[in-house]
Amino acid sequence: MAAGVCHGLPWGGGLISFVCVNDPPTVSTQDLPGEVGLVEARDFVRRKPFLCASGDVLPEITLRYETYGHLNRAKDNAILIGHALSGDHHCAGIHRMTDRKSGWWNNMIGPGKPIDTERFFVICSNVLGGCMGSTGPRSTDPRTGEAYGLDFPIISIRDMVDAQYALITEELGLPVLHAVVGGSMGGMQALEWGRAYPDFVRRLLPMATTARQSAQAIAFNEVGRIAITQDPRWNGGRYDPQRGPDVGLAVARMMAHITYLSDQGMEVKFGRERVAGSTARTLFDPEFEVESYLRYQGRSFINRFDATSYLYITKAIDRFDLYGPEGQLEESLRPVTARVLAVGFSSDWLFPPSHNRAIVHALLRCGRDASYAEVKSDLGHDSFLVHSPELYALVSDFLAP
Amino acid sequence: MAAGVCHGLPWGGGLISFVCVNDPPTVSTQDLPGEVGLVEARDFVRRKPFLCASGDVLPEITLRYETYGHLNRAKDNAILIGHALSGDHHCAGIHRMTDRKSGWWNNMIGPGKPIDTERFFVICSNVLGGCMGSTGPRSTDPRTGEAYGLDFPIISIRDMVDAQYALITEELGLPVLHAVVGGSMGGMQALEWGRAYPDFVRRLLPMATTARQSAQAIAFNEVGRIAITQDPRWNGGRYDPQRGPDVGLAVARMMAHITYLSDQGMEVKFGRERVAGSTARTLFDPEFEVESYLRYQGRSFINRFDATSYLYITKAIDRFDLYGPEGQLEESLRPVTARVLAVGFSSDWLFPPSHNRAIVHALLRCGRDASYAEVKSDLGHDSFLVHSPELYALVSDFLAP
Repeated sequence: MAAGVCHGLPWGGGLISFVCVNDPPTVSTQDLPGEVGLVEARDFVRRKPFLCASGDVLPEITLRYETYGHLNRAKDNAILIGHALSGDHHCAGIHRMTDRKSGWWNNMIGPGKPIDTERFFVICSNVLGGCMGSTGPRSTDPRTGEAYGLDFPIISIRDMVDAQYALITEELGLPVLHAVVGGSMGGMQALEWGRAYPDFVRRLLPMATTARQSAQAIAFNEVGRIAITQDPRWNGGRYDPQRGPDVGLAVARMMAHITYLSDQGMEVKFGRERVAGSTARTLFDPEFEVESYLRYQGRSFINRFDATSYLYITKAIDRFDLYGPEGQLEESLRPVTARVLAVGFSSDWLFPPSHNRAIVHALLRCGRDASYAEVKSDLGHDSFLVHSPELYALVSDFLAP
Repeated sequence: MAAGVCHGLPWGGGLISFVCVNDPPTVSTQDLPGEVGLVEARDFVRRKPFLCASGDVLPEITLRYETYGHLNRAKDNAILIGHALSGDHHCAGIHRMTDRKSGWWNNMIGPGKPIDTERFFVICSNVLGGCMGSTGPRSTDPRTGEAYGLDFPIISIRDMVDAQYALITEELGLPVLHAVVGGSMGGMQALEWGRAYPDFVRRLLPMATTARQSAQAIAFNEVGRIAITQDPRWNGGRYDPQRGPDVGLAVARMMAHITYLSDQGMEVKFGRERVAGSTARTLFDPEFEVESYLRYQGRSFINRFDATSYLYITKAIDRFDLYGPEGQLEESLRPVTARVLAVGFSSDWLFPPSHNRAIVHALLRCGRDASYAEVKSDLGHDSFLVHSPELYALVSDFLAP
């Protein structure tokens, strides 16, 4: 398992020096009011065969997950959070008092926050295929005693959801979910939940997502996959996790990161600001702040993510298509019975507002209870992750029992 | 010189197979009416020092160029074409009767075409820093007898223009240019011409361009540069042109190519069409047509472009900023006396319409004769290269003497 292991940069020659110009937001290490505080991940180990949508079988699966808040007596106050491509199960709180960063959706989840842990029992698991503790390509295949590598089955968003269903029912023993909430790939999971387990989920809150990966989005993912698999250290997928195809993975991440922002947002945040002390005498030193920022993104990603997982998860996203060959989104969404709120963000060009709106239009054509809301934001696709009172109000109102 | 040499793909392991789903448009090999027909490139060899804007000096420079049409007696009917990042001097006609492809702007340039070679004497040179015959990093430094490599000075758009000026005045002996026309980086050259040699040029026709490279555009270029320089075959810039950092260069090109298209255009052209015969049983075979197309783009680029040139030219583009630190575009454009038509394309998100419009607004604020036209197109940044009667009419009307 590569995740969490901080290994050094392999990029030789001293050409690249990473400068962090934009540290991720930090939180106080105190257990503040309004924070879920110290949390612990647990593992759901399911020692029986898991059937993938492809027909392939995993002999057993593990899902790493966290929960926040308390289950009520009726066991009907649980909210499942779906994470995005590079996310994980740790979406709120801190693991150690010395953690500089809290979970990736800590602004959204906590006591008195839009996803209120004083009211709801919140669950988030690392997806099947991931590299943060759940079964994925770097996990050991119990049949061989070695890492699956490329023998891992090609998984789908549906498989991720089925694994979550096993966690929710078999491990946590819940009869129902109050809601499934998620942005980007997390929104795909929400939609898939509504289709696959309509009687099990009451509300769906997909945001910054799509019912069908576009050609442009596939194209970006494909370039990322090629960057990884053409890295000599990829070695056909047989690499020591400490010495993986980090260059390819960093390039993939840097490129993808641009698609998570917006032209306008980058202009405001970086513009043509130059790195302090940049002599601009070589082609290689970061000259513009935006270059430093991207290098930092690449570097921090290779320290926490596995390249093979990146291939599998991007493939699952690329294959996600609720329109089907006939282009009939209604047919795919007809099984949904949950109330749906889809949220688009004005500057999101990866999964633009129109994609989110189309989900609601299709549901309305099926006679379902669905609403669309659009949040004005300059921050692109990642808007769902940042401070937004407008989004908070939408989420908290929609989730009110 | 790597350019034009067709060397094999280095990407081992059989994982990547390129399938060409979209051959570039071909032309008849006949010398058709309306075509400039067979053309020849020539070299302008300037055996005296060339002073770059940085203060660095090149001991001599060569510019490879082509001309079409005839110079009139007054020598005032010449039009200079500026090419884009990956373009070259060969913008119309064919080199051999067996050529499957004609020059990159053959639809625009020729007898009776918008840039009419029956009326105008058309000139196009490979830019300084390029790899298609003009002096660039792969050229031999006469002082050492070896390729410049990274000892090549960091050049600017202004240097490209100064070299063109030497060609126009010293080699061709022209007293004036009727117009400078170019898209993308070619448009930057047009603007720089108007500033640097205001008395020499009567009309400027920049299109799909910008007066200032945006943070997002810098970011994409930077990821491309990192893909190249982190390729083990980059080797600090000391590589055999036959065995250069082709993987990095291909990744850079594939990513950049996405920015030349548009979301909508890709949806129409590729959508989620699957490659015929795709079994979808592996993560690596191209599954979607858009993937095949991009791989083809990557492959054909490494056969014709040099990685070090790519670094230098993208750097020149990234540093292009007529706003300056004070954000005063008017100040930079005040010297311009030429009539200007700037053309933006509705779906261009690399150099969006607003960037082209801003050029004209600044010129108007300086009291200059400038117009802006916007062409509706779904084809993104590359719209200036494709068949467009609307664009043709704009160009031909604007150039009319």
